[in-house]
Amino acid sequence: MAYFNSVEKIKYEGARSSNPFAFKFYNPEEVINGKSMEEYLRFGIAYWHTFTADLSDPFGSGTAIRKWDNYSEMDKAKARVEAAFEFFEKLSVPYFCFHDVDIAPEGNSLRESNENLDTIVSMMKDYMKDSKTKLLWNTVNNFTHPRFVHGAASSNNADVFAYSAAKVKKGLEVGKELGAENYVFWGGREGYESLLNTNMKLEQDNLARFFQMGIDYAKEIGFDAQFLIEPKPKEPTTHQYDFDVATGLSFLQKYDLKDHFKFNIEANHATLAGHTFEHELHTARINGVLGSVDANQGHPLLGWDTDEFPTDLYSTTLAMYEIIKNGGLGSGGLNFDAKVRRGSFTPEDLFHAHIAGMDSFAVGLKVAQKLYDDRVLESIIDERYSSFDSGIGKDIVEGTTDFHKLEEHALQLGEIENQSGQVERIKSVINQYLLTSYAGE
Amino acid sequence: MAYFNSVEKIKYEGARSSNPFAFKFYNPEEVINGKSMEEYLRFGIAYWHTFTADLSDPFGSGTAIRKWDNYSEMDKAKARVEAAFEFFEKLSVPYFCFHDVDIAPEGNSLRESNENLDTIVSMMKDYMKDSKTKLLWNTVNNFTHPRFVHGAASSNNADVFAYSAAKVKKGLEVGKELGAENYVFWGGREGYESLLNTNMKLEQDNLARFFQMGIDYAKEIGFDAQFLIEPKPKEPTTHQYDFDVATGLSFLQKYDLKDHFKFNIEANHATLAGHTFEHELHTARINGVLGSVDANQGHPLLGWDTDEFPTDLYSTTLAMYEIIKNGGLGSGGLNFDAKVRRGSFTPEDLFHAHIAGMDSFAVGLKVAQKLYDDRVLESIIDERYSSFDSGIGKDIVEGTTDFHKLEEHALQLGEIENQSGQVERIKSVINQYLLTSYAGE
Amino acid sequence: MAYFNSVEKIKYEGARSSNPFAFKFYNPEEVINGKSMEEYLRFGIAYWHTFTADLSDPFGSGTAIRKWDNYSEMDKAKARVEAAFEFFEKLSVPYFCFHDVDIAPEGNSLRESNENLDTIVSMMKDYMKDSKTKLLWNTVNNFTHPRFVHGAASSNNADVFAYSAAKVKKGLEVGKELGAENYVFWGGREGYESLLNTNMKLEQDNLARFFQMGIDYAKEIGFDAQFLIEPKPKEPTTHQYDFDVATGLSFLQKYDLKDHFKFNIEANHATLAGHTFEHELHTARINGVLGSVDANQGHPLLGWDTDEFPTDLYSTTLAMYEIIKNGGLGSGGLNFDAKVRRGSFTPEDLFHAHIAGMDSFAVGLKVAQKLYDDRVLESIIDERYSSFDSGIGKDIVEGTTDFHKLEEHALQLGEIENQSGQVERIKSVINQYLLTSYAGE
Amino acid sequence: MAYFNSVEKIKYEGARSSNPFAFKFYNPEEVINGKSMEEYLRFGIAYWHTFTADLSDPFGSGTAIRKWDNYSEMDKAKARVEAAFEFFEKLSVPYFCFHDVDIAPEGNSLRESNENLDTIVSMMKDYMKDSKTKLLWNTVNNFTHPRFVHGAASSNNADVFAYSAAKVKKGLEVGKELGAENYVFWGGREGYESLLNTNMKLEQDNLARFFQMGIDYAKEIGFDAQFLIEPKPKEPTTHQYDFDVATGLSFLQKYDLKDHFKFNIEANHATLAGHTFEHELHTARINGVLGSVDANQGHPLLGWDTDEFPTDLYSTTLAMYEIIKNGGLGSGGLNFDAKVRRGSFTPEDLFHAHIAGMDSFAVGLKVAQKLYDDRVLESIIDERYSSFDSGIGKDIVEGTTDFHKLEEHALQLGEIENQSGQVERIKSVINQYLLTSYAGE
Repeated sequence: MAYFNSVEKIKYEGARSSNPFAFKFYNPEEVINGKSMEEYLRFGIAYWHTFTADLSDPFGSGTAIRKWDNYSEMDKAKARVEAAFEFFEKLSVPYFCFHDVDIAPEGNSLRESNENLDTIVSMMKDYMKDSKTKLLWNTVNNFTHPRFVHGAASSNNADVFAYSAAKVKKGLEVGKELGAENYVFWGGREGYESLLNTNMKLEQDNLARFFQMGIDYAKEIGFDAQFLIEPKPKEPTTHQYDFDVATGLSFLQKYDLKDHFKFNIEANHATLAGHTFEHELHTARINGVLGSVDANQGHPLLGWDTDEFPTDLYSTTLAMYEIIKNGGLGSGGLNFDAKVRRGSFTPEDLFHAHIAGMDSFAVGLKVAQKLYDDRVLESIIDERYSSFDSGIGKDIVEGTTDFHKLEEHALQLGEIENQSGQVERIKSVINQYLLTSYAGE
Repeated sequence: MAYFNSVEKIKYEGARSSNPFAFKFYNPEEVINGKSMEEYLRFGIAYWHTFTADLSDPFGSGTAIRKWDNYSEMDKAKARVEAAFEFFEKLSVPYFCFHDVDIAPEGNSLRESNENLDTIVSMMKDYMKDSKTKLLWNTVNNFTHPRFVHGAASSNNADVFAYSAAKVKKGLEVGKELGAENYVFWGGREGYESLLNTNMKLEQDNLARFFQMGIDYAKEIGFDAQFLIEPKPKEPTTHQYDFDVATGLSFLQKYDLKDHFKFNIEANHATLAGHTFEHELHTARINGVLGSVDANQGHPLLGWDTDEFPTDLYSTTLAMYEIIKNGGLGSGGLNFDAKVRRGSFTPEDLFHAHIAGMDSFAVGLKVAQKLYDDRVLESIIDERYSSFDSGIGKDIVEGTTDFHKLEEHALQLGEIENQSGQVERIKSVINQYLLTSYAGE
Repeated sequence: MAYFNSVEKIKYEGARSSNPFAFKFYNPEEVINGKSMEEYLRFGIAYWHTFTADLSDPFGSGTAIRKWDNYSEMDKAKARVEAAFEFFEKLSVPYFCFHDVDIAPEGNSLRESNENLDTIVSMMKDYMKDSKTKLLWNTVNNFTHPRFVHGAASSNNADVFAYSAAKVKKGLEVGKELGAENYVFWGGREGYESLLNTNMKLEQDNLARFFQMGIDYAKEIGFDAQFLIEPKPKEPTTHQYDFDVATGLSFLQKYDLKDHFKFNIEANHATLAGHTFEHELHTARINGVLGSVDANQGHPLLGWDTDEFPTDLYSTTLAMYEIIKNGGLGSGGLNFDAKVRRGSFTPEDLFHAHIAGMDSFAVGLKVAQKLYDDRVLESIIDERYSSFDSGIGKDIVEGTTDFHKLEEHALQLGEIENQSGQVERIKSVINQYLLTSYAGE
Repeated sequence: MAYFNSVEKIKYEGARSSNPFAFKFYNPEEVINGKSMEEYLRFGIAYWHTFTADLSDPFGSGTAIRKWDNYSEMDKAKARVEAAFEFFEKLSVPYFCFHDVDIAPEGNSLRESNENLDTIVSMMKDYMKDSKTKLLWNTVNNFTHPRFVHGAASSNNADVFAYSAAKVKKGLEVGKELGAENYVFWGGREGYESLLNTNMKLEQDNLARFFQMGIDYAKEIGFDAQFLIEPKPKEPTTHQYDFDVATGLSFLQKYDLKDHFKFNIEANHATLAGHTFEHELHTARINGVLGSVDANQGHPLLGWDTDEFPTDLYSTTLAMYEIIKNGGLGSGGLNFDAKVRRGSFTPEDLFHAHIAGMDSFAVGLKVAQKLYDDRVLESIIDERYSSFDSGIGKDIVEGTTDFHKLEEHALQLGEIENQSGQVERIKSVINQYLLTSYAGE
């Protein structure tokens, strides 16, 4: 193991450790509510950000110092696999995720690209035999290459639709081969740049057809991973068709696809859509479609997808609260779809960043579990809505009333009295829980 | 007629008129595509902004100079009716719209409020006999009064649900009485301030129950107006349940209400949700639910609902283009849900503002109709998507292919060639159409 | 004492107290770095939000339950004073702040308004004799009344300019009378709605003249309070002239006013301007003009001034860090320019909200002081910029180099090596400090 | 001439031409207010967007089809020069602009880079002898290379400061050699990613020292171009030090640099800072520092720098209005800092896009000149502020009053009467002017 030899295996050392290469809050073996933290949190490493990206941005070339960049083409791809599994082991993470082009370079033809993929997938499969790290999900990149300039499954060009289908077909085969627990669709360029030259109806109809064929093919080959849609509102397109969870739900219902998909929810995509992360998780949860999480955070004052590592403990706490209420993520996990800043270009920064993220979600889990166990928010909500437990409220919920009866009821009411929503007090309590959950450790 | 005696009936004088009290582009009788402009545009006046509001804002008290403010309570309400019909006639608009509390003050009880309403509705009905101006839609205000502090149909308080139902029941009766062509639901406070104390699932379930009871009651009394939902993403709440058209569609599908509702789409609400106005109209159109329009505009740099009168000709053109593609608005219309700025406080400003809006939509109609007649955008789109007219593209659209066949097709493709999207050229053409549509008049 | 009799004097009970009417983190007497928390934090209560406002919003009327609303006009104003001093004592705050119209109703003339003010000021002065609570700052409201529709000192109407001057003259006299330690200018309507009808140069020239006259008059009457400008980017105007600290500094320098003003920085105004709270504090600090703070927070997804009570511990920590680096706030303080949500309408909510805010800044103080004492960020920064301590870097800083020498230096460099910025690691450390600062208490 | 052989020299054909390769509104020889359109508008081509960029975005690789990409390294650079001058001639533009790295590839050392530059500069100089196209401005790219990861003149690394200085030194020499009329500083990475690791005061002090050395060196070599700062609020950094015009002015005043700089104002940067384009132009104008313009536009709903070609006629009209009020741009011009969309990848799109931009500013010029000649806005403003022409208003403006006299004046006023701001009417008039300026052509 030679790619990260400046860093030893990361261990849990507790909240007051000053060792930057140690977990302060994430203790994989600590049992929370009957499950180890590791089982509960199901962390995944995003291959693209951590092993493939060079940290370039629209105004600057790559800064990342990565030893595997000493190689090229397929040799680089192979070196990346070695580095990846070294990294997985040193961080002791249970999962990873990738797009096809992250792991193997595109060839001069689809056939050659597939051969490259086969080589690396085979190598990965070998590595996975000796590793505890499994494939949370895979996907295909149908957005970077110029052929996808006008979209993939929603392209105006039927050849591109076909090419995209061939890539997803291969992606499903790869997923099956590596035992992926989920398969993700992020519609990188499924959307429009301008309505002026767009046939949105045809594009969405085609997208639905594409999904249906994907479902059929997965069934055909016996690949039973959970299918996931990943909402994002804009960027790179002006409008992405999977804007947010509600928009995705609308689409899935319209095209009768709802039984086949859940959502992979990304924090930064949520905020770009004008929602909190917890709102998107909540919306998915109460509709039975919370599948997995892309764990990152955006900058509230920047208007693009910054994909920062998650460190905001309010956000990790409220996210974990939704996940607890969901009974966990099932086959999903917390994938760090996050990149170190362009100025954090050393290999060591990759560890710092993942430790930051894992610790932050560990804190989130503990605080959320305590809030949940103490029924802090549940009690408030039960009390607030108690008028629906009896009388006219019960009639409403049970559907045994109508506008006549409701008017009758209303006419005999005096001035209606409401209770305070007490948001300020509730926020105080959240702070108390946040600050006292680790006292004494 | 005494409320606007400084202003005569507004007439069309053409594009070069320097009379501020004349239409420059809106010529009600001009025939466009077989319909008069008046029939095509179906303008409506928003009672609340134009006759009820005082132009206060969160940092300032009312500035509006309105003669009916010399009266109080029911006398003021009656004076408003007189003023309104004088205004309607002077602008020669075919429609108006109102919330219950715009036209009649709330009383000390629901019963008294309803009596106040009856008095004014009866007066309006008389006025309407002698006026060509009809009721485009009515609605009830279930958001201003403190009882609605936590929502109306989505309140945590069953009494508030009942009270809201009673108000909508009356609203439906009023709509029937006055011949309203539509009935609007704007969920003023149907949403949440904070997820921390909210049972979103129960609130949305209740909202759906409420809508169903509304449908039932309208049927019972034979009120066959089109029901409309009006999306808005936030303000006054942090998250409104009817965020945008897609979110509304998701809700309607989930609760099996889609056949009973269309959407009343507001430009400023669209942009607050991160969409263009035309995007929201388009989304509604291709889903068969474009019902009516709240014609205004927001300020692209301000984060609240500014409700400006629509003067951006790009926006009115692209809006009218969608409406033309929709075959018109059916029973809907273009309601000016717009308010004069707080600094535009004279009665004359009400005319200037409506003239500005009506002229802007008249221009929009003419430019859009010309674009449509010349098939400017349609040709571009037909050409762009022509690969779906034959071969593998046709197979895709007809559903006669699968991932095997698509892969086979993809494997034999060389490098795929795409055509330029030509957005810059298309925008040039839009400018040409905009600037030449009135030449010579 | 009769206005808040459901609540006893608030005491410090520690981080695990479940008493909602207790401080959990704010312990006024606890000594931090040689000063009591009370002296350090210098909390102030905003009279307008807490005693005058009714919690109405643009879509709803007031919901606040306030006992003094049983009175009217001057009686109400007097009852408010009683309530205020009861509230001050129960929360044990050292300061309060007000606008003229918050404390006394406007009369039918300027003279009558001034008389009303005199009555209440005299009453307050009596109350202050028996209270430890002092006046942090006062100001005048030159934005609510319709006369200010087009601005005050930047109005297009010279009479309004004069009227505004008369109000500020009185404000300065009131400040002197009550021993205000600062005097604030918030340019409520000093800005424009539209550039199309605005003479921005004349307006800004007049604003500068106004400020100079204010300085002269304060000197004349021997009122030596610190003058403060409060930046805000927009709302109610489209563009406010005191957009942010940098814009304010530009103005002050242009008109040679910099020696006479510092800044009163509001968290929510910072974020509306596209900056973090700490950025604005930092900018003011390094320019020697950090004067006072309006302690609140905005909602990152809402585009208007929500004025929430501050509960985000990251924000309070980073704010306190800047204040510590500034050597405290001098005559300034932390004024809660924050309002309870419209749904938090009970008198008890006023306590919950202030407790939340005071506790949050107490945590911020302790965490920031520990970060500062341990030189966590200082060490990182010293190390990062150490190349300017010697060699060519020292020459640069000392101004002893030029482009010739620098080019010479650059030509002999090999590839330049940079160090990682390590932002992810730093954020981890902040979380550690946040979570461990209260352990064991 | 071989790079754009599908396109002939672009000619003016008038508003109704259907030839996409013709000007519809830009007639270079048409005289407006004593100057030809060409002299008035002083269009420039941005070398980087049009000849160097490949149209990649953060989610996609380059799509641009450019014949010079058949070459590599210096041969490509030379081919670009040939292509550029062919393009300049076919569009008949008077100016172009570049960064050092746009025109010549960086070498393995600063010395080699400079040699590469010399070669291309010499070639350009030859081309310019036979071309009417001159150099509006040049600059150096101190942001793309990894060495600038933490800034250039504001880097924490003194070597980087030195290297940046050497590059600007060369840039000034190149500017002199090619007769540049201006020299631009865009602080690509002059700002911070996070305050947590930033010494903002030192960075800004250094930036000021850098500017002073630049001024000194330009003087030394007799390069008398106008120096320009280009404000941008964020991206790629979280906060750029030259946020907007006001922030830049604050900086220039603080460091006594105001006499040496004007501003190069970009439309898209203005809107990202929360301002309209015209606001930034206006602010610069009334402070005597309006230097030049980066003519583009942003998308109001997207939060990053989209750099679209300018087609919004409202924006071009209001921009030209400010420029007319400024008496033109002096040595500045309208540089198209704009890129074709990634989907507009053909060479022909480069023509469409520039034609769109040039036509849009031609319309803007004509409409603005007519508004100005007719004193439409000037009359409104003169009338609005007329109270400052006599009486107390005159005293205010002349500085002959004080708070005593103003209070005296105020006390004798009855209720103050304001005039309506009439924004709605003014917007109507703008539309009229827009739509009638070309009638009959």
